[in-house]
Amino acid sequence: MHVVALEPGTALEPEQDTLIEGDEARHAARVKRLGVGRHIGLTDGRGTMATAEITAITRTGMAVRITEVRHIEPVSPRIEVCSAAPKGDRLSTLIEQLSEVGAASWSPLAAEHAVVKPRESKLDRLRRVATESAKQCARAWTLEIGDEIGFDAAIEPSDGRVVVADASGGPYRPVGARRLRVVVGPEGGWSAEELVRARTAGVIIASFGPHVMRIGTAAVVAASAVLAAEQQGARS
Amino acid sequence: MHVVALEPGTALEPEQDTLIEGDEARHAARVKRLGVGRHIGLTDGRGTMATAEITAITRTGMAVRITEVRHIEPVSPRIEVCSAAPKGDRLSTLIEQLSEVGAASWSPLAAEHAVVKPRESKLDRLRRVATESAKQCARAWTLEIGDEIGFDAAIEPSDGRVVVADASGGPYRPVGARRLRVVVGPEGGWSAEELVRARTAGVIIASFGPHVMRIGTAAVVAASAVLAAEQQGARS
Repeated sequence: MHVVALEPGTALEPEQDTLIEGDEARHAARVKRLGVGRHIGLTDGRGTMATAEITAITRTGMAVRITEVRHIEPVSPRIEVCSAAPKGDRLSTLIEQLSEVGAASWSPLAAEHAVVKPRESKLDRLRRVATESAKQCARAWTLEIGDEIGFDAAIEPSDGRVVVADASGGPYRPVGARRLRVVVGPEGGWSAEELVRARTAGVIIASFGPHVMRIGTAAVVAASAVLAAEQQGARS
Repeated sequence: MHVVALEPGTALEPEQDTLIEGDEARHAARVKRLGVGRHIGLTDGRGTMATAEITAITRTGMAVRITEVRHIEPVSPRIEVCSAAPKGDRLSTLIEQLSEVGAASWSPLAAEHAVVKPRESKLDRLRRVATESAKQCARAWTLEIGDEIGFDAAIEPSDGRVVVADASGGPYRPVGARRLRVVVGPEGGWSAEELVRARTAGVIIASFGPHVMRIGTAAVVAASAVLAAEQQGARS
């Protein structure tokens, strides 16, 4: 079924009539050739998935009537990824892949050796990438794109455990947290001072493979490994 | 230290004088501006890493004298990835990422729903991507690019265990094999018949995340997860 992503927070109730406008409506009507009587999926990107029947196609949009609403729990534990931003297209690839592996959020990290600082317009573009990816991989919760975060703030969250990816660490072992932050450094690696601050803050330092990885690969593999280890730990 | 990749199988012995020609020599001399007396690394992509001193720069190449040779064991267990080929640039990204996470080889899989069939020229280009990546991530063993393999051959290797990625499986648990093949299907998923054949052949069916993943993400996450689980299993 074709899925249309609505603005986060859009109310979705059974029997409700809703008007879909803009690109999403044009795409459904013109590219997917969906007409009156066909069913589509709607998602608010915040756990609500609805099924709706198309009741009218107008010049500016598409009217639908919601037939069924489901609420879906987010993936647990919640994995928040903070990483240096890779260059060029690799950043969009990172967002898509984090979305596919089930991370909850990504924020650009202002590490000492970081070279790319994404602007607000770039972050907005990444939010659209995350929305498209959520439809592609059938996520009910769209990957959140956060604002830039400093290293000290990244390693001392108000809530949850922190995992810093570094070759000096051992393999990751589950800790039973419901919320984890995975922090991945720039291509030039962590500065000596950053590693000292991380150790002093009591973070988990873990290694996620035998070789040097680009930022994107490291972030995706680390997020996926931490999520899988925690889910397996919770099961056993 | 700048590393130059030689043809696989090039002999590397201490005290040996070697001539480096072509792109690698031009890149080292002109882009990296390395001159006589500087040291470079040499790798044959098959576990031999050498350090060499530049003794002369000529119009066609660079003469070096090898000062030290080290032999490095390949990553164990050996992870052979067979997957449907993703479209466009995603295929090069897949090769780079498999190289970074420590897979031993990749071969294109002729699955029933596979849509991309890489030609020999494409496979040759991927071999160059693998060589460049090996230098980037300091791998002594370059990721091997194999020829196309059919589904039945992929799930019944002469040696080692087979892991088929599918949402119907549970989390991956280590089996203690020294050689594993990780088989990842196309975007359209496995056909019902393929899944029956896989189960009949006694493969391990495992799931590597909560959402639908693109081929590249699934292959990289699965290879990394199987490698990490086996290495942790061997350690404990």
